[in-house]
Amino acid sequence: MTPSISTQVQLVARPHGWPTREDFRTVAVELPPLGPGQVRVENAFVSVDPYMRGRMNDQKSYTPPFALGETMTGGAIGTVVASTADGYAVGDVVLHQLGWRDVAQGDAAGFRVVPALPGVPLSAYLGVLGMTGYTAYVGLTQIAPVAAGETVFISGAAGAVGTAAGQIARLLGASRVVGSAGSAEKVALLTDRYGFDAALDYKQAPVRAQLPALVPEGVDVYFDNVGGDHLEAALDVMNRGGRVALCGAIAGYNATGRTPGPDNMATIITQGLTLRGFTLGDHLQHYGQFTTDMSAWFQAGRIVFDETVVDGIDHAVDAFLDLLRGANIGKMVVRTTPGS
Amino acid sequence: MTPSISTQVQLVARPHGWPTREDFRTVAVELPPLGPGQVRVENAFVSVDPYMRGRMNDQKSYTPPFALGETMTGGAIGTVVASTADGYAVGDVVLHQLGWRDVAQGDAAGFRVVPALPGVPLSAYLGVLGMTGYTAYVGLTQIAPVAAGETVFISGAAGAVGTAAGQIARLLGASRVVGSAGSAEKVALLTDRYGFDAALDYKQAPVRAQLPALVPEGVDVYFDNVGGDHLEAALDVMNRGGRVALCGAIAGYNATGRTPGPDNMATIITQGLTLRGFTLGDHLQHYGQFTTDMSAWFQAGRIVFDETVVDGIDHAVDAFLDLLRGANIGKMVVRTTPGS
Repeated sequence: MTPSISTQVQLVARPHGWPTREDFRTVAVELPPLGPGQVRVENAFVSVDPYMRGRMNDQKSYTPPFALGETMTGGAIGTVVASTADGYAVGDVVLHQLGWRDVAQGDAAGFRVVPALPGVPLSAYLGVLGMTGYTAYVGLTQIAPVAAGETVFISGAAGAVGTAAGQIARLLGASRVVGSAGSAEKVALLTDRYGFDAALDYKQAPVRAQLPALVPEGVDVYFDNVGGDHLEAALDVMNRGGRVALCGAIAGYNATGRTPGPDNMATIITQGLTLRGFTLGDHLQHYGQFTTDMSAWFQAGRIVFDETVVDGIDHAVDAFLDLLRGANIGKMVVRTTPGS
Repeated sequence: MTPSISTQVQLVARPHGWPTREDFRTVAVELPPLGPGQVRVENAFVSVDPYMRGRMNDQKSYTPPFALGETMTGGAIGTVVASTADGYAVGDVVLHQLGWRDVAQGDAAGFRVVPALPGVPLSAYLGVLGMTGYTAYVGLTQIAPVAAGETVFISGAAGAVGTAAGQIARLLGASRVVGSAGSAEKVALLTDRYGFDAALDYKQAPVRAQLPALVPEGVDVYFDNVGGDHLEAALDVMNRGGRVALCGAIAGYNATGRTPGPDNMATIITQGLTLRGFTLGDHLQHYGQFTTDMSAWFQAGRIVFDETVVDGIDHAVDAFLDLLRGANIGKMVVRTTPGS
């Protein structure tokens, strides 16, 4: 029997600084019968991602802010449990953007059937085989392309994008890959499991003090998930003609005032650097190539990944806050059990 | 009779903050007889340029710092007065990089014969027809390419690079060109003589407060000669996919401490911007195309220029300090009269 109650998490106030549980509410929605050309989906996993913090603010950005009083949108994957749409059968695995709810329903056009690989958990399609893997791939192939023999530095390297980026950098020919993370455990994981040549714990000492010794030949490509002190430290050691992919700036997402930028911007001129910011919406044209490359690497055993799984849609906010605090290793996902 | 005494200005101390006259000395050097394959040149004009401030510091940069106790190097143009080199005749006009001296002498390979255009003052080959014109050209064709119909903002627009950039932006098809400068006189010059659609006086109010009203459709390309508050204000109004050519950062050249960067770096991500720093040494391959294009524009009367001329090699330091203060309009040059 298909569930007809959908438990959903909604944004009810725009956070000032760090979000709190009071900025959200959980509601139970009685779903209407399916209209023509629609599907109902039991979600298996719902994604929480750093970019969502920016969309909680009411400000000009690349996508409109989340609407107050409506359910949080974002990536999710689940199984079709009812369908009135051609091409969507009960049991199909589908990706969609309807976000923080355990049961999703809508026009079939908003759902994409995933040709799932055998033995791969569905959550991977929200991570290394999905948008976070693609983010790393675009960053290192299009935004700040890595050439063979180069040194690559990745901040926030133990996160979903960072762990993918470190491995992709190596697969693209980087001769040295260095990462930053926020605990000794994460640092060990980067070097032991993800093949980083070196890593630093940014909570132990300023990045600016630690990074130079780890990159004796300087940095050619910097993949930035953090901003702030990390970007500043990276600019200090960039080689001539270096490239910086600005993907995220989690260091500043919850700032309540304006935070000053790097004190060494002049380096961009003297070293002839290119800094390029990106969001995936502008770069979807490479998704086919990504799928080809990443599936091949994955099936050849050349890509590993971790996930931090939080159970229950009513813990989506906790998962999101943990993500912003850096409590995750690899992709942070919420596992949903509709009707539980 | 050829002069045998060369008056030269040397750097004797590395400035901390604003340079002073005490950081330099003027010396008279008795020139040796010409060796084989050499030329002696009476300089007509010597260039002073903002980039020279950076080279007075003893720090890693794209070129080595100026050597203490040696004559300041840099662009200069003059006339051959003696030659033992094939291809160099007395009377030939030559460009060279031997800098702040009234008479230059050396191996002919360091001197390039200029096919001077009729009616064009020699100083123009240090400016709009030379390196400053080329800087503007490279910035708007290679670093932050302008497309037809776009809005271009140029800081330090009344300087040598800025006045060239404003005109080149228009010739490349920009539909709106806006500049900043440091006086009402300069602002009027930009709109009345150089064809800018609008200009602001950054000394009258914060750039951030003035710029938005002048760029109602946002900015697609920003050519930055200033850095600091100008870059910050520009980032506020950049359109999606906008490009920033970082050419100079004169606002910070004499800073004695580290100055924080823009407080809105996150805009680079959310708007998908590309910031690219450049110095000419990395981009000399387009010089032939520049010469072709700029000569054609110039001879068609589509390029105007101004110069601020200071007389006497012993006033080179004054000219340089005036340049850093923004006392110039257009290219700042020192006119030399050897033997005077």
